Amino acid sequence: MTALLRGFTKTVNSSFKRPIRRNLHSTMVSNNKQYQPALNLKTINQSVLDVHYAVRGELALKADKYQQQLLAKPQSNGSNTSNVETLDGDLPFEQVVTANIGNPQQKGLNQVPLTFWRQVISLLEYPDLFQKHQEIASKIYPKDAIERAKSLYEEIGSVGAYTHSKGILGIRKRVAKFIEERDGYPADPESIYLTAGASAGVSSTLSIALQQGDGCMIPIPQYPLYTATLAYLKAEPLPYYLSEENDWSMDHDSLLKTISDAKEKGIKVKSLVIINPGNPTGACLSKEAMEQVINLCYEESIVLMADEVYQTNIYDPEHRPFHSFKKILKSMPEHISNSVELISYHSISKGVSGECGRRGGYFECVNISDEVMEQVYKMASVTLCPPVSGQIGVDLMVSPPKEGSESYRLWKQETSLIHNNLKERSYLMAEHFNKLPGVSCNPAEGAMYLFPKIDMPQKAIDEAKKRGKEADVMYALDLLDATGICAVAGSGFGQVPGTYHLRVTALCPETKEFIGRFEKFHKDFLAKYA
Amino acid sequence: MTALLRGFTKTVNSSFKRPIRRNLHSTMVSNNKQYQPALNLKTINQSVLDVHYAVRGELALKADKYQQQLLAKPQSNGSNTSNVETLDGDLPFEQVVTANIGNPQQKGLNQVPLTFWRQVISLLEYPDLFQKHQEIASKIYPKDAIERAKSLYEEIGSVGAYTHSKGILGIRKRVAKFIEERDGYPADPESIYLTAGASAGVSSTLSIALQQGDGCMIPIPQYPLYTATLAYLKAEPLPYYLSEENDWSMDHDSLLKTISDAKEKGIKVKSLVIINPGNPTGACLSKEAMEQVINLCYEESIVLMADEVYQTNIYDPEHRPFHSFKKILKSMPEHISNSVELISYHSISKGVSGECGRRGGYFECVNISDEVMEQVYKMASVTLCPPVSGQIGVDLMVSPPKEGSESYRLWKQETSLIHNNLKERSYLMAEHFNKLPGVSCNPAEGAMYLFPKIDMPQKAIDEAKKRGKEADVMYALDLLDATGICAVAGSGFGQVPGTYHLRVTALCPETKEFIGRFEKFHKDFLAKYA
Repeated sequence: MTALLRGFTKTVNSSFKRPIRRNLHSTMVSNNKQYQPALNLKTINQSVLDVHYAVRGELALKADKYQQQLLAKPQSNGSNTSNVETLDGDLPFEQVVTANIGNPQQKGLNQVPLTFWRQVISLLEYPDLFQKHQEIASKIYPKDAIERAKSLYEEIGSVGAYTHSKGILGIRKRVAKFIEERDGYPADPESIYLTAGASAGVSSTLSIALQQGDGCMIPIPQYPLYTATLAYLKAEPLPYYLSEENDWSMDHDSLLKTISDAKEKGIKVKSLVIINPGNPTGACLSKEAMEQVINLCYEESIVLMADEVYQTNIYDPEHRPFHSFKKILKSMPEHISNSVELISYHSISKGVSGECGRRGGYFECVNISDEVMEQVYKMASVTLCPPVSGQIGVDLMVSPPKEGSESYRLWKQETSLIHNNLKERSYLMAEHFNKLPGVSCNPAEGAMYLFPKIDMPQKAIDEAKKRGKEADVMYALDLLDATGICAVAGSGFGQVPGTYHLRVTALCPETKEFIGRFEKFHKDFLAKYA
Repeated sequence: MTALLRGFTKTVNSSFKRPIRRNLHSTMVSNNKQYQPALNLKTINQSVLDVHYAVRGELALKADKYQQQLLAKPQSNGSNTSNVETLDGDLPFEQVVTANIGNPQQKGLNQVPLTFWRQVISLLEYPDLFQKHQEIASKIYPKDAIERAKSLYEEIGSVGAYTHSKGILGIRKRVAKFIEERDGYPADPESIYLTAGASAGVSSTLSIALQQGDGCMIPIPQYPLYTATLAYLKAEPLPYYLSEENDWSMDHDSLLKTISDAKEKGIKVKSLVIINPGNPTGACLSKEAMEQVINLCYEESIVLMADEVYQTNIYDPEHRPFHSFKKILKSMPEHISNSVELISYHSISKGVSGECGRRGGYFECVNISDEVMEQVYKMASVTLCPPVSGQIGVDLMVSPPKEGSESYRLWKQETSLIHNNLKERSYLMAEHFNKLPGVSCNPAEGAMYLFPKIDMPQKAIDEAKKRGKEADVMYALDLLDATGICAVAGSGFGQVPGTYHLRVTALCPETKEFIGRFEKFHKDFLAKYA
């Protein structure tokens, strides 16, 4: 601070003692200067212009508009609606299907929130419920929910107060316990930061780790948060391609090639991002593939950033279980397990909770030096603290009701339903995508998306070019216009040039109807551009 | 995206079809490379090193440690506690008084959350309360709280879903209405962004508006979020000094001097930050001073950033009312009111709600061009959405219970108490600070802090130099060690070189005891360094 100001202090001191009123009119004299906007596309931070984020771009805005339009229109009952004012006339669908974003509790998707979560949080929001109205509350709330709320209240106090910038210590301790039980290796609460969702954790750690010109390996396809953040930082995205032919597995040769290409260009490869289970691919990494990656990070001195937000969304845990990178790292020889830097991210937005709006998550740092951890703390402190409601969500995620407790049965029932729904829908959708002409789709092993490939007719590609769009973007926009289905074009995630994809969530309750609408559109599209 | 990847696609395509298993051991061969940490102070983003944030630095960490130490120690009852294991032996106080941060609901400060807020939010968190358990709920909740929750539920749906990246439209509409009623000028919901507290809004808008080398005028003293964000952006902080001699008012000459100094150095002055009511000064700007500033922004084409998070914390609204910059701007001649760019920030963390942990706030953009607003939207969309709990907080802030409703009386009673407490404590503390030898303190007109000046004895300055600290930092640390009172040194906020201050919140319930402890320490300090 003092250093920053040094140049100014001397000159300013002289005018310091003059009171303000004396100068009241000094700038009131019009000198005919005209105001030139300080902010325009040429003057704002130029890095902002390079940021792209397809998940909520043109498509989402259009879907939003359609949704507003349908809301403004009275429920269709077969009668003529031509006297109703709509934005662009009547729409050829009754409902927008938001398959563009992993938002399970969204209207229309209606994944039911976990009852135990909501009970505990509502009690914490209004402690009078268990303090003044104990008797009445006990008629509504199960005992263990009240007990949990009481013990959290004792620990936290009001949920309206700032917490420690790393998040509430007790919750971080329970996150550490959760990690220990998951992996079989110790975790340090002081290396765990609670965050406003995994996005906030990813963005803040990337912003600390990377600067202009630093190379960061990212999978293609990837979740666009990564390219967006790298663009803002002017860091170099170093894409490595996942192998669509092999169920979107990691192709080790591709990793090596990316590194050698970067070296050739003089780019320092500083970090490697892996999303496991994959978004948008749904692929779940094998232990062997993970060991290979860690070995590579060891040999090349690369910090590994593991986005593991879908770790609970696993469709066939017996044959394709989730392994955390922390666990695999710690199971490796000591010279590796004690040296390779790892940051891993988790979230309450996915999994069985799907509490996206609460903004909760955490990251764990492993083998990061104390001096760097101090900087991580400092940067976290500038944002004061993560939302307390999200922090409590993390607590509930890592400490669900125990078997035998009053709330356990309902919790088990609710979470099983969520697991089954997602798996069934995902399998069913993949099956049907593969039946469509010119579409192929790897079945997902986890997460909540499918990433079908569309063999784009040349005429469609030409037409898209005319419209100044990628062909899959045109496809996605046309799909929305015709059916109300909102799915994001593969180009928003990255794909091998010349291939075209669509990311579709497996969250829509009326899967069959969804497939039917999609099928009709796709066949019409093929016919149109045959 | 496609452009970013262009350089890599050709080389990668060739290895694309090889399955992963074939290469399993390719990197397992030890080539005796040793891991060099990718992240250290020389390799991380160097801008991070320039960031300083005193409010949660060494002092706060030490206070934290003392608090843990006191928690671990059984309650003192006059008996010998020498057999209790503590970190550094016994402490000379029984309680840490956190006067370092405006966190009203913190343990020990215990500002009671507004009942109506908590009732509505608890209902929204667990809609079963008004859906399945209507009859029981009506015994606990007032009718208007249930009605409000129901209508919000209808609008929002589950609080666990992502919302629009700008925030829920209905809430933005009510924010616009609140602004209109406050100012008498229209507001556009599409120019309003809900945020995770004002900090998130400040940080995101500064990050869009400014880039390396751009000048941003900041008041001295200031809230360190500004210097921290500017340091990360490598933007140039251009300090202008507030006039301590004149109740911390703005000194227009100082503004002019700052601008001409910047111009001399070839720095483009792009934005001007004003905190009103002031943090840490507590000063509330006059209409005339605001008009002067706006005129200056007009003449110099500077975007005005108005931090108005303390707008509700006004001690004497009749004689020194709060005026928003939006209102004053809109009351000025058309060529000014329709051109000067303004971004203003508000928060639920302060005011009468004090809901810091919920992370809610908003910013309003005025006269910002559409092309720039698109960029603001894009950057907001990367973070998905602000915490829904914070968004609901904003709704409750802008639409409190109406006069005559069931909840109004209690709400009025609770908010009046908060207003009165803050004002009384602030006046009392200022009075006592001014009685202390070598201390002078402008009484605050609003916000929740005092910023007393301490005439530092030369010997203390010398001693601090020996310890490698600013003298007021040493003072603050010694104060904490001796009394448990945690207050931040003025150097964290900026001050005229050679002057020393302390920022103290006016939130501590036991004001007199606080003053007593402070007084004793201060006299001992003066004696020690006489």
